Amino acid sequence: MADKSSDDGGPGVERTITLTDAVVAIAMTLLILPLVDAVDDGDLTDVAAVWAENGELLQSFVISFLVIYAFWLLHGNLFSRLAAAGRPAVRWLSMINMGWLLVIAFLPFPTAMIGRELTRVTGPLYLGTLLVLSTLTLAMTGLIHRAVGLPLGLAWLTTAVFALCLLVSLVSPQLGLYLLLLLIVAGRLEGVSAARRTRRGAS
Amino acid sequence: MADKSSDDGGPGVERTITLTDAVVAIAMTLLILPLVDAVDDGDLTDVAAVWAENGELLQSFVISFLVIYAFWLLHGNLFSRLAAAGRPAVRWLSMINMGWLLVIAFLPFPTAMIGRELTRVTGPLYLGTLLVLSTLTLAMTGLIHRAVGLPLGLAWLTTAVFALCLLVSLVSPQLGLYLLLLLIVAGRLEGVSAARRTRRGAS
Amino acid sequence: MADKSSDDGGPGVERTITLTDAVVAIAMTLLILPLVDAVDDGDLTDVAAVWAENGELLQSFVISFLVIYAFWLLHGNLFSRLAAAGRPAVRWLSMINMGWLLVIAFLPFPTAMIGRELTRVTGPLYLGTLLVLSTLTLAMTGLIHRAVGLPLGLAWLTTAVFALCLLVSLVSPQLGLYLLLLLIVAGRLEGVSAARRTRRGAS
Amino acid sequence: MADKSSDDGGPGVERTITLTDAVVAIAMTLLILPLVDAVDDGDLTDVAAVWAENGELLQSFVISFLVIYAFWLLHGNLFSRLAAAGRPAVRWLSMINMGWLLVIAFLPFPTAMIGRELTRVTGPLYLGTLLVLSTLTLAMTGLIHRAVGLPLGLAWLTTAVFALCLLVSLVSPQLGLYLLLLLIVAGRLEGVSAARRTRRGAS
Repeated sequence: MADKSSDDGGPGVERTITLTDAVVAIAMTLLILPLVDAVDDGDLTDVAAVWAENGELLQSFVISFLVIYAFWLLHGNLFSRLAAAGRPAVRWLSMINMGWLLVIAFLPFPTAMIGRELTRVTGPLYLGTLLVLSTLTLAMTGLIHRAVGLPLGLAWLTTAVFALCLLVSLVSPQLGLYLLLLLIVAGRLEGVSAARRTRRGAS
Repeated sequence: MADKSSDDGGPGVERTITLTDAVVAIAMTLLILPLVDAVDDGDLTDVAAVWAENGELLQSFVISFLVIYAFWLLHGNLFSRLAAAGRPAVRWLSMINMGWLLVIAFLPFPTAMIGRELTRVTGPLYLGTLLVLSTLTLAMTGLIHRAVGLPLGLAWLTTAVFALCLLVSLVSPQLGLYLLLLLIVAGRLEGVSAARRTRRGAS
Repeated sequence: MADKSSDDGGPGVERTITLTDAVVAIAMTLLILPLVDAVDDGDLTDVAAVWAENGELLQSFVISFLVIYAFWLLHGNLFSRLAAAGRPAVRWLSMINMGWLLVIAFLPFPTAMIGRELTRVTGPLYLGTLLVLSTLTLAMTGLIHRAVGLPLGLAWLTTAVFALCLLVSLVSPQLGLYLLLLLIVAGRLEGVSAARRTRRGAS
Repeated sequence: MADKSSDDGGPGVERTITLTDAVVAIAMTLLILPLVDAVDDGDLTDVAAVWAENGELLQSFVISFLVIYAFWLLHGNLFSRLAAAGRPAVRWLSMINMGWLLVIAFLPFPTAMIGRELTRVTGPLYLGTLLVLSTLTLAMTGLIHRAVGLPLGLAWLTTAVFALCLLVSLVSPQLGLYLLLLLIVAGRLEGVSAARRTRRGAS
């Protein structure tokens, strides 16, 4: 049914963006629920006990929140480029955006898993989910950049970092998560490259 | 109280669309909660155990997510046709949209049910919910198409597929769910028919 | 801090409406969570058992969904009258809207209560919540109608029905809930009176 | 990745506001979930028992709801000043807004904690979270006021109140919470100062 949306009016780019923003906001906020549920158990009078009980859940909350926010920024960049180029209809974009939303909505599940226990099953599942999300974002980037006449640049870097983290997490899930910090480097490199592109496009 | 909205200003089409998009986004995202809750139990160090624990919940999550997204696309098509025709007020539309939202908000419940156990009670309940959702969408399509002067075309096909799935699920709930794949065929046929109509209308 | 919003820019009517629509949509959709949680228990192979387990939760879900939707319609009517009159700033309105949102966000709690057990405590608590919501809506109606120069009309009728239901529920909670059906009559009377007013205002 | 949004289009101020409103609305509404979960336990036929069971959860719900609403008003004030000045891009603003959203999304967790038991751990954790939120709001105020050429005025007062409450809560968590009432005084002082500034700016 998704295909029709391009031929046939469909919810349009504006409603797609509204839905995307809403799903992102909800997914971000639902990440706190495992922590809220955990409040029922354990000792609330001792700092060390509270941290022991909730520390890992907290870390997984923060990581996933930041990851979703970062992907939302990327999504925003893409759709504002599309708007700037005055080309709202891109074949397959609606389809890929659907998958992207599905993965965003799914993310609270592996987040809760690594929050409970980081194992060689939950670590790779979490990082694999992020790799899928990143690949879908890359696919959107490819489609949109081709449509508006921009090169792909270093957009694949983020995806490469997630792939590396996934591979490492099969051996050491903890190290796999730490390597997510490489995303900051990747993001900066991509940002520099994108900004240069934009300036060149503007001149 | 719903009727007044057409006579009396009311929240207007725009706020109705905002509310619809928000309810859709939230319902989609709440579908993950049974999975998040299930994280507390079971072994997280063995892939097979994780799948055995969560596989069926996962499938029900994905199916319901896609179903809600597909209905949201249909809803978007309808309201963009209405907007294109410059005819925002359709009698009973606000009422039917209310029912539509109620069913969307309700869907996480039968989804959680089939995710726990697919039986001759939960299967038909789930598919019956989808049949109601589809019937309401068909009713909206009928009202809007009449208002903007479009034929109904094959819009009833989706509803017929859900009715078939429901009937089959009374005997074999598993087969009833598999038959949902017919929706892809139905969607494509409807899409072709709608696109043809749109092109004819445009020329 | 609320008062400042009128003197000092503040989030503005548009963001207030967005927030209202979002809170309404979320509260509506969260109503299903007690049902989703109840899926974990009980027999899912027998229709009678499923109904016995969930029937009352279901009824409370449907009632609260319809109530929230109806109040959202009333809210929409009010704010579209305000917009039509080109008078966005009304003293105390932002304050009352805050209270209105608080009660909407609170509603899932008494809803879950009557869904578990309808007693002479939970029934009046639920209906009392609705009475507060209705009183706040009436206060908004009064402020906005005075600002745009409309009479109050029968706007107090809904509130009177809730007050009656609350009183009855102190004796028989079940009857108190049934009397909510009087809202349909009240809504129709208010609608007729409002429509007449609007037409007179337009001529 | 956040920095790019200013150089490179990004989701833009409008989508940032949409996301903010959505996160605020969801966080506000999720605050009720610990109460909804608590419905499963305890006696629902006795008013005193219901209050004993839920009274503290209720208080924490109301306090956090009002706090989030108040911060949302402040956020709205800031962004409407920015819009009025026609200066949408402020360095670091997107970054700080991300942190602001993270704390808003996190708030249901300490809220559930003080709702279960107010101790010398949960009280300071709750008030510390509010202090962080307030500091981030102050930072946004500083950046935006500098960008649009407004003095900071008494904007630091709210933050000072939270810092005081936090310090007191280390000794008496109950008193720390009561002192939040000073926010009303602080808000009024800030409001007066801001309104004076606005009027002077307008003349």
